[in-house]
Amino acid sequence: MKRAKGILFFFVLAFLPLLVFAETEASSSGHGEEAVVFLWIAVLLILAKISSLVERFGQPAVLGEILVGVALGNLGLLGIHVFEPILSNNAILFLAELGVVILLFQIGLESNINKMKETGTRAFLVAVVGVAVPFVLGAYLVGPWFFPGLSKVTYLFLGAALTATSVGITARVFQDLGKLHIPEAQIVLGAAVIDDVLGLIILAIVSAIAATGAVSAGGVAWIVFEAIIFLVGAIFIGQVSAPALGKLFSRIHTGFGMKFTLALSFGLIFAYAADAIGLAPIVGAFAAGLVLDPVHFKAFKKPKLAEVVGDRVISRLDQKTREEVAHHAERHIDELIEPLGYFLVPLFFVLTGMAVKLDVLFDKGILLLALGITIAAFIGKIVAGLVAGDVNKWLVGWGMVPRGEVGLIFATTGKALGVVNNQIFSVIIVMVIISTLLTPPVITHYLKREKKGSKGLSHSHA
Amino acid sequence: MKRAKGILFFFVLAFLPLLVFAETEASSSGHGEEAVVFLWIAVLLILAKISSLVERFGQPAVLGEILVGVALGNLGLLGIHVFEPILSNNAILFLAELGVVILLFQIGLESNINKMKETGTRAFLVAVVGVAVPFVLGAYLVGPWFFPGLSKVTYLFLGAALTATSVGITARVFQDLGKLHIPEAQIVLGAAVIDDVLGLIILAIVSAIAATGAVSAGGVAWIVFEAIIFLVGAIFIGQVSAPALGKLFSRIHTGFGMKFTLALSFGLIFAYAADAIGLAPIVGAFAAGLVLDPVHFKAFKKPKLAEVVGDRVISRLDQKTREEVAHHAERHIDELIEPLGYFLVPLFFVLTGMAVKLDVLFDKGILLLALGITIAAFIGKIVAGLVAGDVNKWLVGWGMVPRGEVGLIFATTGKALGVVNNQIFSVIIVMVIISTLLTPPVITHYLKREKKGSKGLSHSHA
Repeated sequence: MKRAKGILFFFVLAFLPLLVFAETEASSSGHGEEAVVFLWIAVLLILAKISSLVERFGQPAVLGEILVGVALGNLGLLGIHVFEPILSNNAILFLAELGVVILLFQIGLESNINKMKETGTRAFLVAVVGVAVPFVLGAYLVGPWFFPGLSKVTYLFLGAALTATSVGITARVFQDLGKLHIPEAQIVLGAAVIDDVLGLIILAIVSAIAATGAVSAGGVAWIVFEAIIFLVGAIFIGQVSAPALGKLFSRIHTGFGMKFTLALSFGLIFAYAADAIGLAPIVGAFAAGLVLDPVHFKAFKKPKLAEVVGDRVISRLDQKTREEVAHHAERHIDELIEPLGYFLVPLFFVLTGMAVKLDVLFDKGILLLALGITIAAFIGKIVAGLVAGDVNKWLVGWGMVPRGEVGLIFATTGKALGVVNNQIFSVIIVMVIISTLLTPPVITHYLKREKKGSKGLSHSHA
Repeated sequence: MKRAKGILFFFVLAFLPLLVFAETEASSSGHGEEAVVFLWIAVLLILAKISSLVERFGQPAVLGEILVGVALGNLGLLGIHVFEPILSNNAILFLAELGVVILLFQIGLESNINKMKETGTRAFLVAVVGVAVPFVLGAYLVGPWFFPGLSKVTYLFLGAALTATSVGITARVFQDLGKLHIPEAQIVLGAAVIDDVLGLIILAIVSAIAATGAVSAGGVAWIVFEAIIFLVGAIFIGQVSAPALGKLFSRIHTGFGMKFTLALSFGLIFAYAADAIGLAPIVGAFAAGLVLDPVHFKAFKKPKLAEVVGDRVISRLDQKTREEVAHHAERHIDELIEPLGYFLVPLFFVLTGMAVKLDVLFDKGILLLALGITIAAFIGKIVAGLVAGDVNKWLVGWGMVPRGEVGLIFATTGKALGVVNNQIFSVIIVMVIISTLLTPPVITHYLKREKKGSKGLSHSHA
């Protein structure tokens, strides 16, 4: 480990002057603004990669990325403010947002829709229990007990903020450890999608109560209808249209560029559509990945290199080039999207870490209350794992534990409506922080124990 | 062609409702802003790919992308304003800017530094003549003749705006037609880099004259010194440090993600460094690509799949999976960066097209003056081609013709200093438009004639 530490130290030494330089440049000249972002991206990506040293301790790379983010985001506590402009840079924020969309698209591509259907009922059960229990705990038990004397709608918001699973972190852990194909992963992914729909419905209901004091049954029915239509429609239309689109566009061009563009656009349009009806964009991206099957785009190959291998030229190509041409001749969608993931996904997790403001943890009063709420939030999801059937129930339950941007959306909406005060807002943030930081090592622990058992191996890479 | 038109028509019909929807959504709800950008990107990428239909007419794909941009950017003339928000969207503008950096990085990767050195002297000659002639023509001949009675420094700015080649377009044409390796392409690329340095020096001189009425010899010497140090230093340090960095980081991780991250960060840091000393970021990215050699990163392979092929598991893998594993085992830097290019490069060229405002062409007075200036700008570069030695001189000359963002930087700087009036500003924009739209078909024409001759074939793919 000494060597690893040496490398890290060398790196920090080498980069800090560059960063200081970057900051002075950015403020002194206007035209360099975009170029400074190039530097930021390079630094964040390299730091994220260096953080994969956590793998030496058996931890998934995503934990390293989040921790690097936490470190960068809290250097301000030590008086170092060079990294702070990153969190207000629209370009990087957008890239990070795109990153989690690409991640869920990739995970959709790696998932098998038929396997998802197999585990569908169990995923539904897990989602319902995993939404109901934290909601009831937060809104009717722990909320009124910890924060007495507040209005009923405030407790409802607190409960709602505990419901929505943020599937990105869990999915990355499963991906990092090559375990996306085990039933537990499929259940968690399916449950997270259903969970998001349920969360949407709850948000609509509690917002209506906060705004008007009453719930419109028609409004709720409409949201439920929209969400179901979207999910069923997306999967149905996607499965029907993808082969047709693949065929249609292969008439224009059959290169990898076209294949890549079609696949990516498919993911982005689904992400947009999900957002348009109020779901998280990642739900749409995941659905897009799920319905896209390699078979749909089989018409695409790389034409340029095929041309090179014309009869007259082939004789001049040496063995290595011939192999390369053969090697290029087939590239799958996931292989084409992968580099985009290398580029964007670490940015999302580093920025997730940077958004963690450790100074919230310094207020002992808030911290104690937050720990209570966090335990309630954890119990709610772990109980949900118990209904997952004949699988590792703890793995499913802990897989549902992370709360992220969705929980924060609830908190922010409640704050905007004037029913969530600063104290509860901070408590929700601490809950998000703890669930974000604690889940990767816990899931890793269960996955490794699983691996040692005879059962685990037969599941993996099946 | 009927079918192609049918496809296009179908596409426009299918997408317009979505776009209108996007606009209403974006204005009605705040949180969907990023999701709308996902939709924009998907639409721009698909339209760019559809535009590759121009290849049926023997034209390079980049021309189609620019023309799609021109069409989208000028729909406002027909009262259709749906696409206009794109040009003021910071995220998309950043992605486009990143796109041209990635393009030149890719082109650097595909170029060979030793071949560049071979053609170095000729590239230098071409650059010097190609900067001197348009400058003299603009500042001392056509400028005073077309726009009599203006101050001398205005003519100097006009001349300066005619000097700087925007190499992105030419490089894409060579790339689209698989001709990056012919000597003409190498000379144009080399000359464009030197050209950028000369342009930087001229901009510094004329800006100093405009601001203070005098030139500081020390200031100019410092710029020249900085630029030379950067180029020589970047290539030298890059060649020395790349293998060391590759070795160092392969100790942390040997996956494709690390290889990709190192290569990309290398390109981005060089782009930033070029910008920091006043050169165009693309010059830095090109230099980074030039010094990065596949050999430097040979320590990287894909470990995850290697793990899968453990003895116990391999027996269960079918033939196809085995091939896939072998296929994954080696991926070069350019192959890893390529999908990033598919994603970002078309955005740059579509946005380049969108920035072309055709209504400037409606003012007959400006149009006539602009045509005169454009001819001077073209002659200046075509004359430069004549000193390129034993190659297709027309190809080199026309390869240097495109003026882009660099010419616009000159115009904008002059306007900010109050020495470039609106008329001359518009004239420069028209010159940039014409050179952007005319160059791809002209270069394609020369390359195809070249191909028919016996000489051309022996150059390609050597």
